[in-house]
Amino acid sequence: MRAVALGGGHGLAATLGALRLMPEVSDVTAVVTVADDGGSSGRIRREIGGLLPPGDLRMALAALAHEPGWTELVQHRFGGTGALAGHAVGNLVLAGLMETLGDPVAALDAMCELLGVRGRVLPMCAVPLDIEAEVSGLDPEGEDAADAADAGRTHRIRGQVAVASTPGRVERVRLLPEDPPACTQAVEAVRAADLVLLGPGSWFTSVLPHLLVPALRAALQETAARRVVVLNLAPEPGETPDFSPEQHLAVLAAHAPELRFDVVLADSGSVAVPRRLRREAETMMGAGGRVHLAPVAAGPLVPRHEPTALAAALREVLSGPPGGPGAATRPRSGAST
Amino acid sequence: MRAVALGGGHGLAATLGALRLMPEVSDVTAVVTVADDGGSSGRIRREIGGLLPPGDLRMALAALAHEPGWTELVQHRFGGTGALAGHAVGNLVLAGLMETLGDPVAALDAMCELLGVRGRVLPMCAVPLDIEAEVSGLDPEGEDAADAADAGRTHRIRGQVAVASTPGRVERVRLLPEDPPACTQAVEAVRAADLVLLGPGSWFTSVLPHLLVPALRAALQETAARRVVVLNLAPEPGETPDFSPEQHLAVLAAHAPELRFDVVLADSGSVAVPRRLRREAETMMGAGGRVHLAPVAAGPLVPRHEPTALAAALREVLSGPPGGPGAATRPRSGAST
Repeated sequence: MRAVALGGGHGLAATLGALRLMPEVSDVTAVVTVADDGGSSGRIRREIGGLLPPGDLRMALAALAHEPGWTELVQHRFGGTGALAGHAVGNLVLAGLMETLGDPVAALDAMCELLGVRGRVLPMCAVPLDIEAEVSGLDPEGEDAADAADAGRTHRIRGQVAVASTPGRVERVRLLPEDPPACTQAVEAVRAADLVLLGPGSWFTSVLPHLLVPALRAALQETAARRVVVLNLAPEPGETPDFSPEQHLAVLAAHAPELRFDVVLADSGSVAVPRRLRREAETMMGAGGRVHLAPVAAGPLVPRHEPTALAAALREVLSGPPGGPGAATRPRSGAST
Repeated sequence: MRAVALGGGHGLAATLGALRLMPEVSDVTAVVTVADDGGSSGRIRREIGGLLPPGDLRMALAALAHEPGWTELVQHRFGGTGALAGHAVGNLVLAGLMETLGDPVAALDAMCELLGVRGRVLPMCAVPLDIEAEVSGLDPEGEDAADAADAGRTHRIRGQVAVASTPGRVERVRLLPEDPPACTQAVEAVRAADLVLLGPGSWFTSVLPHLLVPALRAALQETAARRVVVLNLAPEPGETPDFSPEQHLAVLAAHAPELRFDVVLADSGSVAVPRRLRREAETMMGAGGRVHLAPVAAGPLVPRHEPTALAAALREVLSGPPGGPGAATRPRSGAST
């Protein structure tokens, strides 16, 4: 079975960690967001123009790696307080390979070989992106009459770090440049897949951006793969404060209204009102929208997916009926609600 | 045949390039100086205390490498004007490996595997070193009466960059710390070798330092290998301005008076007065001191050894009689003077 996981950061590492535990998955492709502008990646981006930010790509490589020594090197960060401090060695290697090979996919394939990755890590897009968010609730509280006139207005916030850390409420994100060119190999992988996972991860800056790349969205729409949204375990303070699971789904639907998913996989301990999530899933996915609840958290109050549990839940999802309108009339498995 | 080449920088890369062309050499070990404090290496050294300067080690690895893609990466330098500008990617990888593996030799062995090196690259010493030189001719020319009293005095100049770029004349170098611990594997390689090459390279900062590591000097003295000094093609402005070939030999002898070499290999186009070189070689090496002249320069006035020519010259040296006192009475090959 060919699986594709879309996302970025720790969330993507979690789904990749689960997929590598599933013997029925013979082929894993990670499709990674390329809009990071913070930390080591942001510094590299600013210094070397035109380069994809390497950090999320590096984390996906490490999640699929089988060579412990090289993996430790790639994840190692230089210490101290100098110019190198905080840079992950793998980010520098990936940046260097992208420069010497002149092609990010060739650079990632070389890294896969070095790290013994069984599978492939691809950028969602061939060019580095920026995220711009419409954020509400940023207006001052009446300190200034002119400002007060802005009440209710949304503000544009640009850059992944800024979006992820701004107070206020993110209403919508878009990519700069708009309608960017997808990575061809990523589009092909989604089309050829048997299973596609979107999420978990920073919802507005690592998960939804994939839906804003036209060719990737089209591939997600047209693939015969089973499409699974994996929800976050908890709201993220900067991006989704106080978001319920169903709100996560709602903003996803708002960003790609025509896109249908087959299953929404959520942690059974993180969904307060399953009925509401199911209702939102049906709105978004049609009558066949199926919600699968399973204990996938690393522990109570630990907002991190446990790979073995996530793999078990994915196996249950795969053994269940395919989603889509046609599936609505079929009986559902016990764990599905 | 097991060959060991001692040196640093471009000079060492030249001998390694020649040795890899010689089918009779089955095993090459590079023993590399670790006193660099300039450029990318110097910046890494200052940022990450206790680390060996990686630059000369990286160049030796590249000279022995068989994987073009990884070699290009390792030699690639980041551009721009930012914090990464000028760093060779290989220096950063080697620095990271030395940190994660905790052992420079293990880090170098990992790099050898990555680069398909047939052989081994080792530091001459297990700890980073500094070079301190006694330099004469730095006194002002009578501008100040007090300074004029210093006429003829030597000054201490510390650091490889400072020594290599100071005006005046380097009289002698020493290492800080003094009597540093040799790299055990380098000592073993010298003892087990059939052929040992010292030089060419920056004479005071890349070649002579090897003789100042006690265990390495002892191994050079006791090895049954044929010991060959490969002379520079031209004086270096900063270190050996106006030095004749015989002066190079004389300062070598001054730094390790008890050490005997079997052959002095020099470029036939670079030795103005072969008789003087031969005399100096005899003084230094005993009656058996043999000087071998061969055209080994990349071209007239090109101060760079041509690997194929250097390999041919080394083959002639090896086919000649062994050096040492016993060899004095044997007939010499035509090319030897």
